[in-house]
Amino acid sequence: MISIGIDLGGTNIKAALVDQKTGFIETTSIPTQADLGKEHVFDRVAMAVKKLLEEHDVEPIGIGMGLPGMVSLDRKTVKNPPNLTGWKVENVAGEIKKRTGYNCVIENDANLAALGSAFFGAGESFGSFIMVTLGTGVGGGIIIDQKIYRGVHGMAGELGHVIINYHGPLSNSNTRGGIEAYLGQRFLSRFAADTIRQNPDNPLYSKFHKNFDKLEPADLYDAAETGNELGIDILRQAGEKLGYAIVNYVHILDINKIVVSGGVAKAGKWILGPAEETAKKYLMPPFREGFEIVYESLGNDAALLGAASLAFEELC
Amino acid sequence: MISIGIDLGGTNIKAALVDQKTGFIETTSIPTQADLGKEHVFDRVAMAVKKLLEEHDVEPIGIGMGLPGMVSLDRKTVKNPPNLTGWKVENVAGEIKKRTGYNCVIENDANLAALGSAFFGAGESFGSFIMVTLGTGVGGGIIIDQKIYRGVHGMAGELGHVIINYHGPLSNSNTRGGIEAYLGQRFLSRFAADTIRQNPDNPLYSKFHKNFDKLEPADLYDAAETGNELGIDILRQAGEKLGYAIVNYVHILDINKIVVSGGVAKAGKWILGPAEETAKKYLMPPFREGFEIVYESLGNDAALLGAASLAFEELC
Repeated sequence: MISIGIDLGGTNIKAALVDQKTGFIETTSIPTQADLGKEHVFDRVAMAVKKLLEEHDVEPIGIGMGLPGMVSLDRKTVKNPPNLTGWKVENVAGEIKKRTGYNCVIENDANLAALGSAFFGAGESFGSFIMVTLGTGVGGGIIIDQKIYRGVHGMAGELGHVIINYHGPLSNSNTRGGIEAYLGQRFLSRFAADTIRQNPDNPLYSKFHKNFDKLEPADLYDAAETGNELGIDILRQAGEKLGYAIVNYVHILDINKIVVSGGVAKAGKWILGPAEETAKKYLMPPFREGFEIVYESLGNDAALLGAASLAFEELC
Repeated sequence: MISIGIDLGGTNIKAALVDQKTGFIETTSIPTQADLGKEHVFDRVAMAVKKLLEEHDVEPIGIGMGLPGMVSLDRKTVKNPPNLTGWKVENVAGEIKKRTGYNCVIENDANLAALGSAFFGAGESFGSFIMVTLGTGVGGGIIIDQKIYRGVHGMAGELGHVIINYHGPLSNSNTRGGIEAYLGQRFLSRFAADTIRQNPDNPLYSKFHKNFDKLEPADLYDAAETGNELGIDILRQAGEKLGYAIVNYVHILDINKIVVSGGVAKAGKWILGPAEETAKKYLMPPFREGFEIVYESLGNDAALLGAASLAFEELC
């Protein structure tokens, strides 16, 4: 069975022809040109689909599409998606069907990344798991028996806005001391810069003291790999905070398989090790059995594969 | 339709004959005598059932039973229930069926209190809600579409062990800064005593300074009702902390109806008002719409009615 997966972002429209068993057949990416308005973006999506099918004589069962924002429970409309200029409540599925002839279902992109992991990634071996995405922000998706847990309004899994310290810093949202305020890329970089400033003898200081804006989690990872204790310590502290958030997810949901994805997660074992250690320390004993944190290496492909998977699940 | 609900506690066995539409037909309560061992307790349960049916010519569809501890996914066995001496992994449903002839399903008592609220209490008007029980400990249950959300192992909804401050105090469990470490009855009383000690001019000081062990949340409520600012402030601070925990539940689950039950919740508006205010302040905007905290007045009857409801759900 073949479907079309689309990942609609503020910058690019990624599209893929996906075989349910073997994964990608063909992928393409074109600029979204979001500033030209929604009608234009819908046309661009149709163009990407056309491009994808040009050289393949196949009959996709339909289109699954991921995009930022809050998706209705019937998976047809999206509400106020960030980064898509001028969008309010839009019947995206209807617009795409009109332009391509294919049935279309949409879903929040963070949820689809989790679904992609469930069918094509690290989550494949788990029936149920929690995906935590560590990138610019911290987000995620909850998979129960290979299905997205959506909650009452389709907004479940705001994992970045789970408080671990009510005295803590504000993040972009109005939640105080949420895990995003510690592990969102900008916050982690700022915390790292503050710490490095206090250690002028450390190689990280010489490298970044003229331009701390350029410091990224990957630099901390590189430093940690060379044995830089300060780099290791900064990532360890970040990992511990992630561990506290994970305790909260697990105690509420009783799902103890954690899949971590996203740019910051590339700091790998230096974050995930301390996260696992902290979580195991503070989890109630019965939840520790079988508890696991694994890294999802699909990267951005996860959302695209998840979009295609949604089509298999919903349009057959 | 009629079923039998049983609430097996370490002290008493409560049993009820329940009509699915109208609620209690008859209730009874006998001491558990847990120290005489499990076989004796099973016999006692059968005795309570017999007593219940003595004067009623009805045909119950079966028995639903609540008890503390971790219940297997098939709802037959319980593992290491606290307060029941010498119990390990016990096929409770089988033992009860053997002694009474009735099919039996069991469930964790906190989950059943939530189910009781869903069918007979404050939760009746919500399809999905989160019940938070504020008593000796803090616990709860998650109801999605009038069904208990159980998680992967049947342990979901450990709401008392959700961290709101990773620097915070330890509770009975090994989780640090969980909401139970602030709102569990003993913890709240201790916090109140500490605060009152620092205010020797307050009437609460004169009343309790010789025996702070006797101070209970209800005393704070009484003080608050008479306009005692210190009492109001202590309960307000407790309520705010509950609000932070609720933010975490809602952001993960996307369920924004909260039902609060238990002894501490009797401090009523003085806790729940600040909890609601704090949650609304820190919830992401889309979750605020329709957000509600309500009080469950069923008290201990909730678990008993929930047990009977489980029988209706599972044994028909």
